[in-house]
Amino acid sequence: MRIVALAGGVGGAKLVHGLTQILRPQDLTVIVNTGDDFQHLGLHVSPDLDTICYTLAGIASRKTGWGRDAETWNAITELQRLGGPGWFRLGDRDLATHLERTRRLSSGEPLSQVVREFCQAWGIEQTILPMTDSAVRTIVHSDQGDLEFQTYFVERQCQPRVQGFEFRGAERALPAPGVLECLGRADAVVLCPSNPWVSIAPILSIPGIRAAVLKGKTIAVSPIIGGKAVRGPAAKMYLELGLRPSAVAVAQHYRDMLWGFVLDKRDVQLEAQVRELIPRTLVTRTLMQTNSDRLHLARDVLDFLQAKEHDNLGDRARKAAKAR
Amino acid sequence: MRIVALAGGVGGAKLVHGLTQILRPQDLTVIVNTGDDFQHLGLHVSPDLDTICYTLAGIASRKTGWGRDAETWNAITELQRLGGPGWFRLGDRDLATHLERTRRLSSGEPLSQVVREFCQAWGIEQTILPMTDSAVRTIVHSDQGDLEFQTYFVERQCQPRVQGFEFRGAERALPAPGVLECLGRADAVVLCPSNPWVSIAPILSIPGIRAAVLKGKTIAVSPIIGGKAVRGPAAKMYLELGLRPSAVAVAQHYRDMLWGFVLDKRDVQLEAQVRELIPRTLVTRTLMQTNSDRLHLARDVLDFLQAKEHDNLGDRARKAAKAR
Repeated sequence: MRIVALAGGVGGAKLVHGLTQILRPQDLTVIVNTGDDFQHLGLHVSPDLDTICYTLAGIASRKTGWGRDAETWNAITELQRLGGPGWFRLGDRDLATHLERTRRLSSGEPLSQVVREFCQAWGIEQTILPMTDSAVRTIVHSDQGDLEFQTYFVERQCQPRVQGFEFRGAERALPAPGVLECLGRADAVVLCPSNPWVSIAPILSIPGIRAAVLKGKTIAVSPIIGGKAVRGPAAKMYLELGLRPSAVAVAQHYRDMLWGFVLDKRDVQLEAQVRELIPRTLVTRTLMQTNSDRLHLARDVLDFLQAKEHDNLGDRARKAAKAR
Repeated sequence: MRIVALAGGVGGAKLVHGLTQILRPQDLTVIVNTGDDFQHLGLHVSPDLDTICYTLAGIASRKTGWGRDAETWNAITELQRLGGPGWFRLGDRDLATHLERTRRLSSGEPLSQVVREFCQAWGIEQTILPMTDSAVRTIVHSDQGDLEFQTYFVERQCQPRVQGFEFRGAERALPAPGVLECLGRADAVVLCPSNPWVSIAPILSIPGIRAAVLKGKTIAVSPIIGGKAVRGPAAKMYLELGLRPSAVAVAQHYRDMLWGFVLDKRDVQLEAQVRELIPRTLVTRTLMQTNSDRLHLARDVLDFLQAKEHDNLGDRARKAAKAR
């Protein structure tokens, strides 16, 4: 079964990591948000690509949700001593990724090629694609003005009230080489439990990608559980945009493009409402705290996609989820 | 006594460090070679400025002659794992200097201002000036073509045979703010035991600096001892340019601008020859292996500059040198 996953950072990385433990490497492609990419200290930083790649390479920090394990912080400590900006925490090993990426981009390599070569170096066998090789920047319209995403997210710690989003440059961007091809070949598309507003929407904003996802057998896994985001500002964003954050709101968000929808068992009381929007649902444990959680959710997602009778599968998965 | 020292890397840093232990901070200005500066990994690297500053800040590596003490190498190790260039060894703490310098230069700060602010952060009270805020690049003409200095020096480890030097951009460069002023006010100028070809010559190539040095009471300390450079390619360069490397060759190099010359006691047999070029000489221990060596040479140099009768001073210093 050939799967394409659309992913942002941590939630996406966890589910993708689960999928890698079941699928053959050649059967999984991940299309990653690059709307969060930004220039910092003259370096091209790609937070979501790095989170996905570090996770699949087994070198991601388990503690922070970003950056690398066994990290040291000597460069940033000294940089701050010199009066430089320390708000974006760059570890010493992580810095190498940004330095080498920047060097290659400056020499004219497209981002997708840099990612491919980094994946080889890190021993990642799955195909990881940036959504685009073009510069697309997520801008957060807020009560504090238009903010670059990392300024909103890291420097201001999501404090500004969100009024809307813009994916600057998207209208002129092209999908990265391989993106439309893999979507066209996929047996199914998975919208990972990433932030719908700032992780999945930027990917879908690239001309051609939404249409390809619409054509596919596409499911989404809700990143909202019990009215809250597992991490990040997704729930706060729904609220500030006048929407009640819930699995229903996420289903509403994606309804026109979904074959099926996965929600957490804690939200089982919302299943009927979701079904009014998307008839096929799977209720299971979606919270991924352990590696076993990642694997089980990936298994449930793949079973759901393969099931003839979604209801039966839903019941089976529910039982399985109850047993663990 | 107000002293201006012209310095390159390690040898210069050692003598300057000795001088800082005797002179009041406001009485010492160091004009540093920036012809070795280069762009690497998108960063502006200033090897000589960093060697001088790290040494005066007490954070220089004692082992390598470049870089910082208590250094870690995680970024460069990971960079190489990604296929990036590892020939120029950048430690994690050292990287911070280059990142923050590059950030400030990109925002329009002149190099001299960056250096001044870094010195404040590092607690350096003496005035450290780059020779210029302009881009001047030392090019080594060699049997392997025209090479940027760091390519010749680090990447090719001084293997190419030298045919000449060029300080590209020097003719249009301006001395950094303060350079001519401090030379004009100085009681004496010290050409440190740095490489005459690629450390001192680039400084003197900046329009106005040579003339100011000529006007001053200037001495040089030979970087060649017993026909060899203490470190670096100075002796090899003399040979390849058809000159016998010795204190005499160094004296010849600087003869038109010197009030006095300092040579090592191991070269005492050359003193007569040197005196034919420069009548005032001081023979003493110039090799700086310990901190005490740095202090003693600095003391000898200052005594030499203050002595009425250089011969007597030469004898006294010789005796002092013999005693240690």
